[in-house]
Amino acid sequence: MRLSCLIVVLAICSQLTIAQNQKTDWESMFRGIPSPERQREYMQRLSARPHHVGSAYDKDNAQWLLSTFKQWGLNARIESFDVLFPTPKERLVELLEPRKFTATMEEPREVVDITSGQRADQLPTYNVYSVDGDVAAPLVYVNYGIPEDYEQLERMGISVKGCIVIARYGGSWRGIKPKVAAEKGTIGCLIYSDPKEDGYYHGDVFPEGPWRPKDGVQRGSVMDMPIYPGDPLTPGVGATAGAKRIPLKEAKTITKIPVLPISYADAQPLLAELSGPVAPESWRGALPITYKIGPGPAKVHLKIKSNWDTKTINDVIVTIPGALFPDEWVIRGNHHDAWVNGAEDPISGLVAEMEELRGLSELLKKGWKPKRTIVYCAWDGEEEGLLGSTEWAETHAAELKQKAALYINSDANGRGFLGVEGSHSLEQFINGVARDIEDPEKKITVWKRSQLQRIKSAPSPEDRTEARTRPDLHIGALGSGSDYTAFLDYLGIASLNLGYGGEDGGGIYHSIYDDFYWFTHFGDTDFAYGRALAQTAGTAVLRFADADVLPYEFTNLNETIRHYLDDVKRLLKSMQNQIKERNREITEGVFSAIDDPKHPLLPPPTEEEPPYLNFAPLDNAVDALSRSADHYEKAAKRIAHAFIPPSPEALKAINGKLLLTERALTHPDGLPGRPWFKHLLYAPGAYTGYGVKTIPGVREAIELKRWKEAETEIVRVAAALQLEANVIESTARDLDAQPTK
Amino acid sequence: MRLSCLIVVLAICSQLTIAQNQKTDWESMFRGIPSPERQREYMQRLSARPHHVGSAYDKDNAQWLLSTFKQWGLNARIESFDVLFPTPKERLVELLEPRKFTATMEEPREVVDITSGQRADQLPTYNVYSVDGDVAAPLVYVNYGIPEDYEQLERMGISVKGCIVIARYGGSWRGIKPKVAAEKGTIGCLIYSDPKEDGYYHGDVFPEGPWRPKDGVQRGSVMDMPIYPGDPLTPGVGATAGAKRIPLKEAKTITKIPVLPISYADAQPLLAELSGPVAPESWRGALPITYKIGPGPAKVHLKIKSNWDTKTINDVIVTIPGALFPDEWVIRGNHHDAWVNGAEDPISGLVAEMEELRGLSELLKKGWKPKRTIVYCAWDGEEEGLLGSTEWAETHAAELKQKAALYINSDANGRGFLGVEGSHSLEQFINGVARDIEDPEKKITVWKRSQLQRIKSAPSPEDRTEARTRPDLHIGALGSGSDYTAFLDYLGIASLNLGYGGEDGGGIYHSIYDDFYWFTHFGDTDFAYGRALAQTAGTAVLRFADADVLPYEFTNLNETIRHYLDDVKRLLKSMQNQIKERNREITEGVFSAIDDPKHPLLPPPTEEEPPYLNFAPLDNAVDALSRSADHYEKAAKRIAHAFIPPSPEALKAINGKLLLTERALTHPDGLPGRPWFKHLLYAPGAYTGYGVKTIPGVREAIELKRWKEAETEIVRVAAALQLEANVIESTARDLDAQPTK
Repeated sequence: MRLSCLIVVLAICSQLTIAQNQKTDWESMFRGIPSPERQREYMQRLSARPHHVGSAYDKDNAQWLLSTFKQWGLNARIESFDVLFPTPKERLVELLEPRKFTATMEEPREVVDITSGQRADQLPTYNVYSVDGDVAAPLVYVNYGIPEDYEQLERMGISVKGCIVIARYGGSWRGIKPKVAAEKGTIGCLIYSDPKEDGYYHGDVFPEGPWRPKDGVQRGSVMDMPIYPGDPLTPGVGATAGAKRIPLKEAKTITKIPVLPISYADAQPLLAELSGPVAPESWRGALPITYKIGPGPAKVHLKIKSNWDTKTINDVIVTIPGALFPDEWVIRGNHHDAWVNGAEDPISGLVAEMEELRGLSELLKKGWKPKRTIVYCAWDGEEEGLLGSTEWAETHAAELKQKAALYINSDANGRGFLGVEGSHSLEQFINGVARDIEDPEKKITVWKRSQLQRIKSAPSPEDRTEARTRPDLHIGALGSGSDYTAFLDYLGIASLNLGYGGEDGGGIYHSIYDDFYWFTHFGDTDFAYGRALAQTAGTAVLRFADADVLPYEFTNLNETIRHYLDDVKRLLKSMQNQIKERNREITEGVFSAIDDPKHPLLPPPTEEEPPYLNFAPLDNAVDALSRSADHYEKAAKRIAHAFIPPSPEALKAINGKLLLTERALTHPDGLPGRPWFKHLLYAPGAYTGYGVKTIPGVREAIELKRWKEAETEIVRVAAALQLEANVIESTARDLDAQPTK
Repeated sequence: MRLSCLIVVLAICSQLTIAQNQKTDWESMFRGIPSPERQREYMQRLSARPHHVGSAYDKDNAQWLLSTFKQWGLNARIESFDVLFPTPKERLVELLEPRKFTATMEEPREVVDITSGQRADQLPTYNVYSVDGDVAAPLVYVNYGIPEDYEQLERMGISVKGCIVIARYGGSWRGIKPKVAAEKGTIGCLIYSDPKEDGYYHGDVFPEGPWRPKDGVQRGSVMDMPIYPGDPLTPGVGATAGAKRIPLKEAKTITKIPVLPISYADAQPLLAELSGPVAPESWRGALPITYKIGPGPAKVHLKIKSNWDTKTINDVIVTIPGALFPDEWVIRGNHHDAWVNGAEDPISGLVAEMEELRGLSELLKKGWKPKRTIVYCAWDGEEEGLLGSTEWAETHAAELKQKAALYINSDANGRGFLGVEGSHSLEQFINGVARDIEDPEKKITVWKRSQLQRIKSAPSPEDRTEARTRPDLHIGALGSGSDYTAFLDYLGIASLNLGYGGEDGGGIYHSIYDDFYWFTHFGDTDFAYGRALAQTAGTAVLRFADADVLPYEFTNLNETIRHYLDDVKRLLKSMQNQIKERNREITEGVFSAIDDPKHPLLPPPTEEEPPYLNFAPLDNAVDALSRSADHYEKAAKRIAHAFIPPSPEALKAINGKLLLTERALTHPDGLPGRPWFKHLLYAPGAYTGYGVKTIPGVREAIELKRWKEAETEIVRVAAALQLEANVIESTARDLDAQPTK
């Protein structure tokens, strides 16, 4: 029995089916359980009313989840935290000049969509963690409001200082827009949903179709999450009742300038009153206007005043103790709070997680005993800034760092292709899982469907060949934007984020129209992919929890790090080439020669050429990692084919070392300027927000032209990789030392 | 004196200034003459009223040009032709279902723009050479209406048979749209101006800005010009009074289905009533609607009925006889007719041509005697299908083939960069001219400005290096769309098309708003580039007319042909790779695996892989051409540095051979399926209309997968290039035989 279990650990590396052993039976049994119909019922119940942080129904949902899990015979509890949660008392956006217009900032009910009429329970449209403010100034259109947009404005000779900016959603996480705007000296920020991004440009608008109607608004957090997520007043510690809190004015993640989101019906009158240069082509949206930049003559008055209250959030936690390795934890989470009714975000993911949990409870009743401890979590307060997961992770940091082997996250789910991002030590593992899940539309495995898609969309013949021949499909790296952040970036726990999507679009994100009506008309309407998600994540939990040796694998990790290193080197080389070339063009007079005097652009400034950096420490470390990864692979293979498997004690020791492999990739000091982010391989970009930066310390130092810092970071990352190599090498030797016959 | 003249011929190949010889004095003197103010006056007069073919003011303009040229002491005459020119009696576009709407098809006057109110003289909005028709059918949106758009529709499972299509302007010459639509079995075609192409998407609309207002319509010809341009009833012969005419129903260039152009104000109500699949992203314009494809439920009634009249067109021709080589002609042309007032198109180019001619008349008065005969032409009937130039060229074909050494064309002119397309035997020559013209905005040469622009816009570092180091800037190849067509493509006369542009945009093309008000507010408002064009084209005429040896050059020609050959080989290779890869993907099940069942796309059909073709004849011919071009270059250089220049008789003989070099690139049988087009290197694409196809016989055969034809064409083009090599080699030997001391 033990032998066959070990084979499983390796079988995930191949296309072998795993049909004849006991584990497969539990897995197969499990995959038969998740029910689309039940997911539909859960969704109807959970999204019946608005359930944002602090609302009655948010608490009610938590209680209902708790009692449901208990009814299933599970050990469930609620863990609560008290977090800062501002809600608006006053909101005003008005055009003062050249004519008067006041933004409505209301999303109207749609008759066919009953829950859209629950006005009394709905949060108004706003961006949480905007500072209070009351400002009036000329308006400037800044496209997505990301750093390169301001570079373009500089070339146009446009100063935004003292202005209010209007940015469209997209191009970055929304919190980046007011952050950059404040750095540039503006005094207020509007963010609007252009129909080019998620409105009529793409299809019929709600309720005829899934896309954003003219008055639809995207709520959302604008905290400076790349500094730290979670409660702004308790960075690095759990926001428990007695926790020490910093004063509000010291909270670095609150915006520096007031921010409000608006619909395009409210934005168009403002944009239409801008003059000045016509926006560059890539800046233009789908409104029937000439997009111009300003500043002015539009002058805007922006006011936002909030109740800066503390609210209680309720995480629902289920624990299934491990029979053999109780101190090795597999954690699975999805949030339950929403901005309004949140049928898609997050309930579509949560109902899949619930069905996993019901499935596991059924197995338990049939006698299944997982080797490892399994923890299922339904997070509260994700929407505001990953509050529930972050505070929980910070509260239990010590224990988690000791015990957590895996965190699997999901969030909104839809029809289409399996999306996986995560730690690359899990790449082989999750590929193996994906080979065992059937795509509900195509009746081929979700792995095969993804592979065929990659063949189709390969950007080059080389990528196509790789998609055809590489045993594992590459998984993406994790940035931020959902509850894995604290686990991966703060604690260094190997993590995965799973979800289906790519076939449906829509424009109801964070609006009152993200509800049961929308999802059952335009989303995964028959919950077939909800079932697939439950099967995928549940199989991963089950397989990981029951593996004898923790199913990490390091050759894919090493290959991926090598790619990242190549990327970073290319980045430097390309900056060198670009700056050298641009300097030459400035000298040649290219910019003045091609400049149209009627539409003048300033030449860019001459810049110092980036120096060459010493990448040797990283090259050496990657080579060391390569050797140890190869060694580990061989050693693990030998054990997998062993007649005498290792003893439980030996496995505990080996797994105990393996548990450290992701932790070895972190550093207690964290990244430069943001010590909360401790992972040295993955982090959300300081100026992208959701988008990941790999080897972030080195990469961002190069991007920001901090050459000294880049050199220091190279050494620091190299040291971490050497440590990683050592841990892997040591574990491989431990495996070698195991008798096998 | 003769020595210095000969140096000039070669000096154009270098950056030597040509300051100390007599020719330069004439040139410098000439370049001082063209006056912006006079161009403004001419434009005001010529665009004062609508002057389309058959209108009173068109004839009046011709008479005024004639008398003006005569006043300047020039030998001017009018040559007239009688051409088929249908004008509409009835036009109707109405939406029948699901609601009623009738298109206005009227361009309203703008109060600030006086000539826009000359309603009685304006041609209605229509597409000339549309067949009469009265049809009603469901509407389908076909994007640009080019062949690849119909391939996309097939993949979507949409049949257009029996439908009326609506296509937006752009992506091809407009005449291609009804041509392809008819081939696909549709029964009518609407063409509209989407604001994404030339409307508010780009900037303020007229009269606040230069872009197309909501009711603006682009008139224009839809004859099947890639078969033959000119009068539809007299293919290949001049439409003189007594010419034999084919019956109307045999005229292949008349459309097969009725066509009308409409504004977007008229198009939007039709497009808004389409349902069916959402159009692919690249098909979407800038209207505030969801672009859908249909067919229907919009049902459209389209009716067009014309007076199929014959009208007289008047070309104004000026001849300046050559003193030394009267039978070697330099021809210069620009059309004078317009769709309405036509200030930009074509008067902005015509007024520059007029100032050239006034400049030459001044030189003549000062004693200048050009060595070659110079012919200046102001063409009528260009807009309908290059009528004036084509009928003239066909009428004088025999003499022109014997005597014409160069045709220089221009059309609408604007601010910005010098654009040059033409025969590559003239590439060095026109580069030399461009080095002597000052850019009015930047006070550097127009050559330098172009070079710096190419450095900036180079798509690769290799292209950038070439832009920096190649002595000559590449010139483009000529497709069609203006009056050079008959000269280059029908007669094989080395041709150039010159014009400035790239800094101003606008959306008044072929509308009532292309007038003096528009041009003097939004075009080359101070006629600085009108002056530059007169200096450029005039210098070219002067330099070419006075060169001892015709300033053709063949190493650049050879290099260019080698590029074209490489292109054609790459085209075949890439088709082979693409089809092979697609067939493999079809077998692998890629298309069905990635297909979204809610938005189904049919998989593409499996196709036979293109065979390898025998390019050896072309490779050998290009090598032969390379050897002769190198030989000629050396021989010409020796003569240029000779103490004893060749005698006039020797020069006549040499030039007589050189005259044949462009003719050698033609074939009397023309291209496959379109015998009128005789040039084997350049032709407008059968399915692009304006866009050039180089080595068109071979390239289009490959594109259309006619492998036999491709092999035949390879041999035919190779023979022409061998002939070309022989002529050049023989001329080089003649030069070698000249005594030089």
